[in-house]
Amino acid sequence: MSRRKSVSKEWEVRASTLARKTNNLIRDIIQNLQVEPNPEKQLIALSVGDPTTFGNLNPPEQVLQAVRESVDLHTSRGYGPSYGYPEARRAVAQYSAHQGDVSPDDVILCSGCSHAIEMAITVLADSGQNILVPKPGFMIYKTLAEGLGIELKYYRLLPHQQWKIDLEDLECQIDDDTAAIVVINPSNPCGSVYTKEHLSDVLDIASRNKIPIIADEIYEHMVFSGNEFSAISSLSKDVPVLTCGGLTKRFLVPGWRMGWVIVHDRQNVFGKEVRKGLTNLSARIVGPNTIVQRALPSILSLTPQSFFDDVILFIENNAKMAYDMLRRVVGLRPTMPQGAMYMMIEIKMAQLTDIKDDLDFVERLMCEQSVFCLPGKCFEYPNYMRIVLTVPNDILREACKRIDAFCRDHAAQRENIKAVDNFAVTLPADEEVYCENEVPSVL
Amino acid sequence: MSRRKSVSKEWEVRASTLARKTNNLIRDIIQNLQVEPNPEKQLIALSVGDPTTFGNLNPPEQVLQAVRESVDLHTSRGYGPSYGYPEARRAVAQYSAHQGDVSPDDVILCSGCSHAIEMAITVLADSGQNILVPKPGFMIYKTLAEGLGIELKYYRLLPHQQWKIDLEDLECQIDDDTAAIVVINPSNPCGSVYTKEHLSDVLDIASRNKIPIIADEIYEHMVFSGNEFSAISSLSKDVPVLTCGGLTKRFLVPGWRMGWVIVHDRQNVFGKEVRKGLTNLSARIVGPNTIVQRALPSILSLTPQSFFDDVILFIENNAKMAYDMLRRVVGLRPTMPQGAMYMMIEIKMAQLTDIKDDLDFVERLMCEQSVFCLPGKCFEYPNYMRIVLTVPNDILREACKRIDAFCRDHAAQRENIKAVDNFAVTLPADEEVYCENEVPSVL
Repeated sequence: MSRRKSVSKEWEVRASTLARKTNNLIRDIIQNLQVEPNPEKQLIALSVGDPTTFGNLNPPEQVLQAVRESVDLHTSRGYGPSYGYPEARRAVAQYSAHQGDVSPDDVILCSGCSHAIEMAITVLADSGQNILVPKPGFMIYKTLAEGLGIELKYYRLLPHQQWKIDLEDLECQIDDDTAAIVVINPSNPCGSVYTKEHLSDVLDIASRNKIPIIADEIYEHMVFSGNEFSAISSLSKDVPVLTCGGLTKRFLVPGWRMGWVIVHDRQNVFGKEVRKGLTNLSARIVGPNTIVQRALPSILSLTPQSFFDDVILFIENNAKMAYDMLRRVVGLRPTMPQGAMYMMIEIKMAQLTDIKDDLDFVERLMCEQSVFCLPGKCFEYPNYMRIVLTVPNDILREACKRIDAFCRDHAAQRENIKAVDNFAVTLPADEEVYCENEVPSVL
Repeated sequence: MSRRKSVSKEWEVRASTLARKTNNLIRDIIQNLQVEPNPEKQLIALSVGDPTTFGNLNPPEQVLQAVRESVDLHTSRGYGPSYGYPEARRAVAQYSAHQGDVSPDDVILCSGCSHAIEMAITVLADSGQNILVPKPGFMIYKTLAEGLGIELKYYRLLPHQQWKIDLEDLECQIDDDTAAIVVINPSNPCGSVYTKEHLSDVLDIASRNKIPIIADEIYEHMVFSGNEFSAISSLSKDVPVLTCGGLTKRFLVPGWRMGWVIVHDRQNVFGKEVRKGLTNLSARIVGPNTIVQRALPSILSLTPQSFFDDVILFIENNAKMAYDMLRRVVGLRPTMPQGAMYMMIEIKMAQLTDIKDDLDFVERLMCEQSVFCLPGKCFEYPNYMRIVLTVPNDILREACKRIDAFCRDHAAQRENIKAVDNFAVTLPADEEVYCENEVPSVL
């Protein structure tokens, strides 16, 4: 510690390394885009993974009522334990029984799922270590890890195999400094849902290499018909898993910031240190909002299954419609998702003229058609774009038509291309054709 | 990056340095205490700085109504900007006009004041640097800094001068690695309130040494009659200040986790980097709960002044009563606070027999009298203890009587000691005697 010798003459205050290196990739890319919508067309944003944006999807009355009642409790205003009230953690443990044997002591409540992911990363990884994340993948991992000197290493997902994990590539990425493997299932941005067998293959790799798993399951249960959601923790025999979840997507309340980390550690690999580490970390910001914490037992037990079914059916129908429209569009190759609330769409640059890359595509789509999609670059995956499927059906249909018009305007070969809106687009009777593992390019 | 050469045979997963070194000093000390209450006396906890614990202090109806209305807004459920909704930041800027010229762009909303403090520390200080904090002082700074390799250096407060800052000591602590000076005003745990002159002296030191200030003003405006609260930022001509505040204490809702950092930088010393750094950091956990965010404009504008007046009068009356009782107790020397909600009490070990230190004192007080106070060690200040002044008046009176009985039981010289409850304890007509700068030892 150097003793101050002289008083400095000029002010010079810098931001810390952590602050400078905490970057939000999506925000940075979007801020640099030249995205002015066409003033003659109303803007349709298919970019934000927020199911509440359009006001068409709302939490059930039981959830709102639970929160209203909580506001009136004088016990919903004080400091709770920084890892959450016991009743709230018990409710999460019961709600998460499908993940395996979960006790309230295994649950740490967090301020939203981003905070849960931050806790999971920071408890396992030190500066100089790395975590493996999927590519394409949700970039909060980059935001959270890099400022702390934790490196991201990417393993490939296979676009032509319904975004399954390239297991060989995954194992290749593991090195002596790998602190955790992140598995996002159902996937943002891909909408893929992994089978038990596939998850078991991932667990085998983790077990062989003795690497714990961070399971990002914020989209748990959000799967379309014909698919089944399995929690990776429920299949683990020895691999310790930190599962990150929350109310955010399934209950349509991202702003409420109620998330959790669940510790799965059947063989006591973590020992006391990692559990104590999570408790320690929770003390930094003293837990999530207590209004929602107090309401959590009611929220998790009183929400009717029909609410979840209705929401997922709505998203699935949107997915089918968008897939059916976009697979006919020149220059695009969508993948029909199996769950979550997104669709990844390949942009076949060779079939389009004067479009440089995915950034250029979304920028010009915005300028000409006032439709905004996230470029694949936001997920470290160029020449793709992601659309959100929670928007009202008629708006999504209009957006798809405009995307079609845009692609026709920019098609390399313009003959014999019909507009998608000339097709009779109806929800297909046989949904299985959209859920096949290998979705062929339709163009 | 070392390539993995062989597959490891045994599991060995450690917690990160950050997780291991994020320690909650208060929790650690309390967990190691042998604190079983006397089964024949009901427990009175004077330990937790949570004004809601006893249910006697509640937020005003206007605040609850604002939150109830917010629950029903579909716009209170989505992701906002990670630094907060513009309307909410505008409301905080208006509410904070006493701090100086504040625009909505100067406000970053956080998940409670602990998060605000975390943001302020982590944006300014890098691993290897240090921040100066008061001693005695609230230990969240230790919890937040040490795991990140940021050192704490302590400057002295003067117990016999109403806990004013020892300015000479403060300046002595500054070295080339000092990233910020933390000023807590009104003070936890001391209850002191600094004058404009004293704050200006601190600013002079910061200005001369070119060190920014982190102002922990979570107890802003909570001052007793005869005292005046001044925001240190309002007095600064050049020193940049990050002020941390929130709803927590003044609105009696610590669990709601609504805090903020306000950037005061009249001379543009921070430049773009520190402001951008704060925005970057806010992206880590995507902002505070949106129910409370949406309610913030109403909460901050509709709460009547009479509510604040009533709460502070209640605390002040409790402080006077406790001071009047405890200053007569053998072995104790309380300092009459000027604000906040705490009182620091010196334990004069020489006047007590068979009591080793402050830990021993609070432990045995718990065992014998079922009263629990926080030992000074929790604030890096041995041979003191802190009591909380928000408990119901009759309970506080009972606690003071029991503390008196305890001290009489352990007095070194037992003759001529009257019980405090034999005195007629009434609220004093002339409060000034309790607010003098130099409170003499009464024993």
